[in-house]
Amino acid sequence: MNAKQIRAAIVGSTGYGGVELIRLLESHPYVTVTSVISSSSAGAPIADGYPHLTEIRTDLLDDVDVGLIRDKADVVFLATPHGVSMKLASQFLEAGLKVIDLSGDFRLKSGDAYKQWYKHEPADPALVERAVYGLSEVYGEQVKTTDFVSNPGCFTTTSLLGLYPAVKAGWIDPNSIIIDAKSGVSGAGRGLNLSSHYSEINENFKAYKLNRHQHTPEIEQVLSEAAGRPVVTTFTTHLVPMTRGIMATMYATLTEKRSDAEIVELYRQFYEGRKFVRVRPAGHWPATKEVYGTNYCDIGFSVDERTGRLTIISVTDNLVKGAAGQAIQNLNLLMGWDETLGLQFTPVYP
Amino acid sequence: MNAKQIRAAIVGSTGYGGVELIRLLESHPYVTVTSVISSSSAGAPIADGYPHLTEIRTDLLDDVDVGLIRDKADVVFLATPHGVSMKLASQFLEAGLKVIDLSGDFRLKSGDAYKQWYKHEPADPALVERAVYGLSEVYGEQVKTTDFVSNPGCFTTTSLLGLYPAVKAGWIDPNSIIIDAKSGVSGAGRGLNLSSHYSEINENFKAYKLNRHQHTPEIEQVLSEAAGRPVVTTFTTHLVPMTRGIMATMYATLTEKRSDAEIVELYRQFYEGRKFVRVRPAGHWPATKEVYGTNYCDIGFSVDERTGRLTIISVTDNLVKGAAGQAIQNLNLLMGWDETLGLQFTPVYP
Amino acid sequence: MNAKQIRAAIVGSTGYGGVELIRLLESHPYVTVTSVISSSSAGAPIADGYPHLTEIRTDLLDDVDVGLIRDKADVVFLATPHGVSMKLASQFLEAGLKVIDLSGDFRLKSGDAYKQWYKHEPADPALVERAVYGLSEVYGEQVKTTDFVSNPGCFTTTSLLGLYPAVKAGWIDPNSIIIDAKSGVSGAGRGLNLSSHYSEINENFKAYKLNRHQHTPEIEQVLSEAAGRPVVTTFTTHLVPMTRGIMATMYATLTEKRSDAEIVELYRQFYEGRKFVRVRPAGHWPATKEVYGTNYCDIGFSVDERTGRLTIISVTDNLVKGAAGQAIQNLNLLMGWDETLGLQFTPVYP
Amino acid sequence: MNAKQIRAAIVGSTGYGGVELIRLLESHPYVTVTSVISSSSAGAPIADGYPHLTEIRTDLLDDVDVGLIRDKADVVFLATPHGVSMKLASQFLEAGLKVIDLSGDFRLKSGDAYKQWYKHEPADPALVERAVYGLSEVYGEQVKTTDFVSNPGCFTTTSLLGLYPAVKAGWIDPNSIIIDAKSGVSGAGRGLNLSSHYSEINENFKAYKLNRHQHTPEIEQVLSEAAGRPVVTTFTTHLVPMTRGIMATMYATLTEKRSDAEIVELYRQFYEGRKFVRVRPAGHWPATKEVYGTNYCDIGFSVDERTGRLTIISVTDNLVKGAAGQAIQNLNLLMGWDETLGLQFTPVYP
Repeated sequence: MNAKQIRAAIVGSTGYGGVELIRLLESHPYVTVTSVISSSSAGAPIADGYPHLTEIRTDLLDDVDVGLIRDKADVVFLATPHGVSMKLASQFLEAGLKVIDLSGDFRLKSGDAYKQWYKHEPADPALVERAVYGLSEVYGEQVKTTDFVSNPGCFTTTSLLGLYPAVKAGWIDPNSIIIDAKSGVSGAGRGLNLSSHYSEINENFKAYKLNRHQHTPEIEQVLSEAAGRPVVTTFTTHLVPMTRGIMATMYATLTEKRSDAEIVELYRQFYEGRKFVRVRPAGHWPATKEVYGTNYCDIGFSVDERTGRLTIISVTDNLVKGAAGQAIQNLNLLMGWDETLGLQFTPVYP
Repeated sequence: MNAKQIRAAIVGSTGYGGVELIRLLESHPYVTVTSVISSSSAGAPIADGYPHLTEIRTDLLDDVDVGLIRDKADVVFLATPHGVSMKLASQFLEAGLKVIDLSGDFRLKSGDAYKQWYKHEPADPALVERAVYGLSEVYGEQVKTTDFVSNPGCFTTTSLLGLYPAVKAGWIDPNSIIIDAKSGVSGAGRGLNLSSHYSEINENFKAYKLNRHQHTPEIEQVLSEAAGRPVVTTFTTHLVPMTRGIMATMYATLTEKRSDAEIVELYRQFYEGRKFVRVRPAGHWPATKEVYGTNYCDIGFSVDERTGRLTIISVTDNLVKGAAGQAIQNLNLLMGWDETLGLQFTPVYP
Repeated sequence: MNAKQIRAAIVGSTGYGGVELIRLLESHPYVTVTSVISSSSAGAPIADGYPHLTEIRTDLLDDVDVGLIRDKADVVFLATPHGVSMKLASQFLEAGLKVIDLSGDFRLKSGDAYKQWYKHEPADPALVERAVYGLSEVYGEQVKTTDFVSNPGCFTTTSLLGLYPAVKAGWIDPNSIIIDAKSGVSGAGRGLNLSSHYSEINENFKAYKLNRHQHTPEIEQVLSEAAGRPVVTTFTTHLVPMTRGIMATMYATLTEKRSDAEIVELYRQFYEGRKFVRVRPAGHWPATKEVYGTNYCDIGFSVDERTGRLTIISVTDNLVKGAAGQAIQNLNLLMGWDETLGLQFTPVYP
Repeated sequence: MNAKQIRAAIVGSTGYGGVELIRLLESHPYVTVTSVISSSSAGAPIADGYPHLTEIRTDLLDDVDVGLIRDKADVVFLATPHGVSMKLASQFLEAGLKVIDLSGDFRLKSGDAYKQWYKHEPADPALVERAVYGLSEVYGEQVKTTDFVSNPGCFTTTSLLGLYPAVKAGWIDPNSIIIDAKSGVSGAGRGLNLSSHYSEINENFKAYKLNRHQHTPEIEQVLSEAAGRPVVTTFTTHLVPMTRGIMATMYATLTEKRSDAEIVELYRQFYEGRKFVRVRPAGHWPATKEVYGTNYCDIGFSVDERTGRLTIISVTDNLVKGAAGQAIQNLNLLMGWDETLGLQFTPVYP
């Protein structure tokens, strides 16, 4: 074993986020997954519920046992629902593990905002304060110094990577921002629900949670930080009849006249050296399948001189850059490794 | 034959718009399709290219022969591409037929706008002037008095039915309007193109023609009329991996504080007695499949007090209310019949 | 009200079979649906769960109350699960209603076979005996004389209409028959299950219940009757990532050399005058979408001289000819009406 | 550069087979793709037509120039249509390159069979003789000794891996074999055609080329070799509304009574040590998505005692094990490397 080798445990291994962590970590040169954990299916082979893992992972699911996991792992990924992560994170941190949480429990610095949007009591404020918000291309330096990462939401990542440079530069009016987001169905997880029942979704397109989606305050928190003043946005989510992929189509009023080429240049400079953001040339817009199965976030632009507005298109694979991939990218940063380790996939196309 | 019986011809019967006219007119109590026409496949049975019509239509496709069609039909539907309709419409009108054109050739009153957005010489201005723009729920009274209807575009119909009452009432700022539209692939027709090639579209979501879609000036023309002053909008189109259905998600700034209930009431009054517009109760938004195969346009709302914006969701079946269905609705109006004749389908769900 | 008018009740109106009965009966000239019934959602507007019915059906769901339904209806459709229908059918028959049952409870004449394949106690043998098996094109004459129809399964209908004429004529060896069937997901109903969860089914193709599907003995019962001797078959079902449609691809050894044209002729004669079976010309095979939303069963053939086998392709819309449509066809027969009443739809294509 | 490093060229890089070779070879530790070649798009950046390759491959497409390629590459993959490969293969072999051909040109040993099924003149018999048929798990030993591999077809690979052990062992009657195959649409390539036009395929299921598919003689050639006598089969292909994946459902009469467990054991022994074939336990059948994006072929079984027949389910990803993946597996064998190099992906699920 290489001196760099570490051991990882995944709590919530039978959800789509967990199983995607397994897929990606199989390719990581320095990480071995030593424990796949599910409170609901403990004791069963993981391949029973996920036959695509046949002969790839033959181990049994562990129960959530902090003592056991402490002995088996150096880092734990929490792919658990909100409300659950807040209970587990402190235990694992106390046990000396590094923790990367994929839930919404530690993303909002304001407990009131959490309560309002999640309809749930917030986590311990000290723990919230301790968590570093892991939007890797924006807060990567902070991630390098922590042992506790709160991984951003899928809609949030896709939207913020598309908006941050323009807001930071003052090129768009932050309070004019409208985000029209579209997601594949895997974002809703494996839990059974009429809104992910095949016959209801296939050959259908629907909007949901208008002006009520819990990723709204997360987006506004970062945009406010970038703008240096409070920002409110309009944020709409839609369900697309496909499994993977998110697109955010974003509209904002330019503060001054700008060309497509200037915008492209601003973004290329902002993301220089960051391999997972691909800024497209003027006149080209990414489609979701062009990042399928990978940690890329691709971004394109269109300036409309008639209206003075900028349209920004940003796409990710919601299970990779929007969840498991960015979590591993944060692990890489936190460990002081190259952020692309284990994540250098070419998109599966077609 | 009932005294009300009329005979119809369909030019462009082998396109998706034409074949949908055939489907719908099979159920019309007063209309018999006496000629299905295709310049490219004349002489062949229509069921050769469309086996779903086996034993339903056994006739052969006619060529485009105005003299012949004049003898066989009282009304002609032009389901032909732009540039073609402008050549045919005048001939059929001179021959004494009623004409319903589904192309973009007669929609824009401004020849300059047509040239700019369609990259093609405009039609004869006198003919353009003569055409009545057939957005049935808005211009139905004019349609009743004409023999020449220019049928609106699919995106236009969906967007305008959702915006018109609020703009007309002055409740939203017309220049704040942003239209984020999503369409199924059948809107692109049966012509072969990489952008409707299955493996490129399935499990993919993409934006196209940002700030350049030719339905933009059509939308602005009507909004300007409603607002009483020139309006420009931001209009974006996306391709959804499904065959039928359009959703327009529309954003605008409210001119005064309004509740969801007030908006619903405004729209219910505006569309009173018009069966094909279903205004949803506050807090409910339509999905595209809920109008599948029918002439309905369903509309829902969400007011956001935080931002002062109104979000409007409007859906249609692009081949029905967005094309063939509204064309028949216009025929009904033009003939002085009940506008719902032959169009009373229940959506195919699931 | 026309003297022919009758009133219908639908038990199980919130399932896909029930809601399809509602859609189709909206177009029936002689039938009015006076009661939509659901034990689980009684008291709620049906459009709450099915918004596509907004303004089409504004009535509330009734509870299962035989006394009430007897007063409101002349015929009752049981779109209820197996095990439930057997309890309800006798009550409605005793109350003097005509009953059309869409479950599997009365299809198998052998109680032992029912028990073996359904893992459930069989219905009262006298009632089973009384039920007429409603494969309309084969047993239509018996249906005309009964007040109690057991509607065939979706796989069964699709398979048997494709096999019956050849078996009856002795042209194929009945014990050589292999049925490879493929179904859209709506066949599994609206009940939540991982096997109809969108992300598990989309972009996936799977086989299920190999050699164990409960439609097997139903198919064999009819084939044995046709052959005049006991027949066993190999029957496999697969799930296709689409909502509607069934295809059965069937293989059998020819007893003598035959051409495609001879087979086509045999089938055309057998189904003469029956509008819902469309026998395709030699060399043409139907696709499921070519019968979408309609009561058609389309059939095509391919003789292979090299192997001496006949391949038969048969398609239906599982919710129409495979369920609600054939149920209405049986009602038409039972009432002495034209069997196509209310069912003359053109397939929705594309 | 490692001593093991080799350079590869891909002719036909703009087809789906070619672009999948690019994706997979990006992960290969010993192979560098030094030339991507397309006669139709030479001179353009490959990412122009395939934006998912943005910043991954920035090189320009080369023209088909044997002299040039000889200088740049050690091995050439021909992802070219049949009829084209036969012209190129000899030139590259003469130039001293190793050649792996993915077309049908060198698969059939009989020129007459080629002519009959491909409707095209066969390749030079000497060259056909020289080509080793690269069904890796069956003919791997021969592949290790050649410099010219003819890569099997996608349907063929999926079918033969499922049938070979049982035929070889004499456990099934080879002339009773019926293969009912289903493929995703990517198998038809990127060429525009109504049969891969989105609106014609989505929500549709169709059969095609009954008893005429050109993979039939390829399957029979290998089965005849396994059986030691001429075998004819019934082979049917269907199109599934999904992009990737093939399932072959295969039926055969058992020569003696066997249990599921015995069959599983036979296959496990046959494929021992071959990582890409995963034999499923008795009662479990693979779905196509369980091998998505990988080189696996998963196989399951069902014995039916009532009919004495064995049903075999075999699945692959048609672009990987059915094309590019097996081609690389053959390169690994030919080079004397571990056959799994560069191919150790976990399936993308969901």
